[in-house]
Amino acid sequence: MRFLHTADWHIGKKLHGYELWTEQEDAFQQILTLAQQKKVDAVVLAGDIYDRALPSEQAVATVNQMLQQINLTAQLPLLAISGNHDSATRLETGSPWFTATNFYLNTKLEQAFTPIELADTQFFLLPYFEPFAARQYFGDDKLRTIAQAMPKIVAAMQEKFKADKKHVLVAHFFAAGSQQSDSETKVTVGGLDAVPTDALAAFDYVALGHLHNETALHAERIKYSGSPLKFSVSEAQQQKGVWLIDTDPFQAEFLPLKPLRDVAEVTASFAQLTDPAYYGQLERDDYLAINLTDTKVIPNVMQELRKIYPYILSLSRENGREVTATSTPQIRTLSPMALLADFFQETTTQSLTTKQEKLAAAALKAAQKDGE
Amino acid sequence: MRFLHTADWHIGKKLHGYELWTEQEDAFQQILTLAQQKKVDAVVLAGDIYDRALPSEQAVATVNQMLQQINLTAQLPLLAISGNHDSATRLETGSPWFTATNFYLNTKLEQAFTPIELADTQFFLLPYFEPFAARQYFGDDKLRTIAQAMPKIVAAMQEKFKADKKHVLVAHFFAAGSQQSDSETKVTVGGLDAVPTDALAAFDYVALGHLHNETALHAERIKYSGSPLKFSVSEAQQQKGVWLIDTDPFQAEFLPLKPLRDVAEVTASFAQLTDPAYYGQLERDDYLAINLTDTKVIPNVMQELRKIYPYILSLSRENGREVTATSTPQIRTLSPMALLADFFQETTTQSLTTKQEKLAAAALKAAQKDGE
Repeated sequence: MRFLHTADWHIGKKLHGYELWTEQEDAFQQILTLAQQKKVDAVVLAGDIYDRALPSEQAVATVNQMLQQINLTAQLPLLAISGNHDSATRLETGSPWFTATNFYLNTKLEQAFTPIELADTQFFLLPYFEPFAARQYFGDDKLRTIAQAMPKIVAAMQEKFKADKKHVLVAHFFAAGSQQSDSETKVTVGGLDAVPTDALAAFDYVALGHLHNETALHAERIKYSGSPLKFSVSEAQQQKGVWLIDTDPFQAEFLPLKPLRDVAEVTASFAQLTDPAYYGQLERDDYLAINLTDTKVIPNVMQELRKIYPYILSLSRENGREVTATSTPQIRTLSPMALLADFFQETTTQSLTTKQEKLAAAALKAAQKDGE
Repeated sequence: MRFLHTADWHIGKKLHGYELWTEQEDAFQQILTLAQQKKVDAVVLAGDIYDRALPSEQAVATVNQMLQQINLTAQLPLLAISGNHDSATRLETGSPWFTATNFYLNTKLEQAFTPIELADTQFFLLPYFEPFAARQYFGDDKLRTIAQAMPKIVAAMQEKFKADKKHVLVAHFFAAGSQQSDSETKVTVGGLDAVPTDALAAFDYVALGHLHNETALHAERIKYSGSPLKFSVSEAQQQKGVWLIDTDPFQAEFLPLKPLRDVAEVTASFAQLTDPAYYGQLERDDYLAINLTDTKVIPNVMQELRKIYPYILSLSRENGREVTATSTPQIRTLSPMALLADFFQETTTQSLTTKQEKLAAAALKAAQKDGE
């Protein structure tokens, strides 16, 4: 059995206000192409298909198209679970019809104990679940965390193990010892729920979703695929991709995805950033988190930078901004309106709109009147 | 071909604040039982499956269960379209997988021109559509209303007619000459969009959704099924049900549904309504719109009536309320708070909550202070 392991698509997610439809569609097409080129027997999708429990119509249409392309057009078996960002109830719509074409979509804990047999492998599809569901299922009030529930869950799965099959768990939780980045939502605060990897030793492979970095966990047979796209500046250095897994003999290969528009951090001075010799070397169309080394006030800084870099995510000051006595003479030469506009821009990374300018002018006038 | 024609389920709809889950589930089970008893070859569901474009999780779970019961458990072919209350995009989730078990769910205009052939009949499933969609599909900017689009749509369907088959249209719009009740949303204001029944003459039968009363239209072969439940007091006198249609020879029989809890209007005096001899004759557990014949002020009227009639929808005064000089002495004996509570109750049919009482007391105190 050879399969692709992907997760955390978060369809509908925005990046600092930018919509990612084109990037998500592009990453999906890469995944589909890899699945076909590598002649996989199945695609595993380990939760957080949507970014929100109540996805927009466009997100619904996008996901519907993607799942259809994998399972109906490309005729690839698809093994999926709901994550903590999905609404299990909404996601399961249609799922009783899907199994006829080997599309298995589990959204309830109790479904996890019926393995899906494909070729040499038994897949156990364990959706994201609340400890409450485990207490109900096992009739055991002592199960207060996902970590406490997992030994019971694994034991119940082991009862279904066929000796001549490989056993793969697909799940969506926080595994102990792994590292989180900014774009993930913690399952529970404090990490009390972290599942020790020891509890997962029974499986030949564990295909995890939840953390967005494939290097979050260092275990040979328990892996996060990570998200197909960078969803925060803190992920700028990560290589996104999918795992290609062979069960017999076991082999895991990470296949990188090339982002349509990358997320990158740039640290430079305003003079450098506006110098063609400098920005000619850069991917100016990337989503950029710009870190200015300047300390002086720069008039219209965001407006000027946007002329060169259309997709700025954030603007910060590496060395802080000079607001000491030395800059006072310069500040004194500026009108109150220019100072306000500059402050607004540096703080919010946005220019004042015409409407905001009018409001600000009126406020300044009123303040002046009060002063008199 | 024998089929049941139903429509306008509006799953998730509330009646004056009362949730209707149990009633909707009960009506559904009656429809399913009728389909099985009458040995139909298919069930036709002519739109407005949901009450809202963005249904609640409970509504989604309910509809998922119902469609599954008809098509997968009872193995009945199911022919459905989206109505103006459904989100076409959300509703179509899973639909490409449904056809394998003869569940056809059309949500886009262009799908209507591929007839579904079952036994001796070609079904044309025309979902609710905006005139804009017809302009796009036909490349004709002159199509400004549904009525203007219908001749073109019917002509395009007729091109697919097989001479040896019966032809059934399933659609969701306002047909000319039909009467509306309170619980329907007009497709467009002013009725400009009403489709003349002449335009539908090509079909052996037209199974319509949109209007909630099966008697809304008087035509032998063009019928509204109406909703399975009464969704407003204005529908109190209607008999709800489903059509049993035979195509050859053509026959239409209206099969009534018995509501779990009926909607009824009662006109009587407070004395009658609180007299066991009177209310022993009534279905006290119905959803009741009560019309009081009294003209006097009745303290705690709603609270008193709720003790006997737990599901009051509204309370009105057949003969108005006496607020002339004759009642002034009685009013004078009441405290401002009692008067306010009484007024609130008569106007909103609700008692003041503890919180509201506190707010009202504070307001009265403030008013009194002002007066002093």
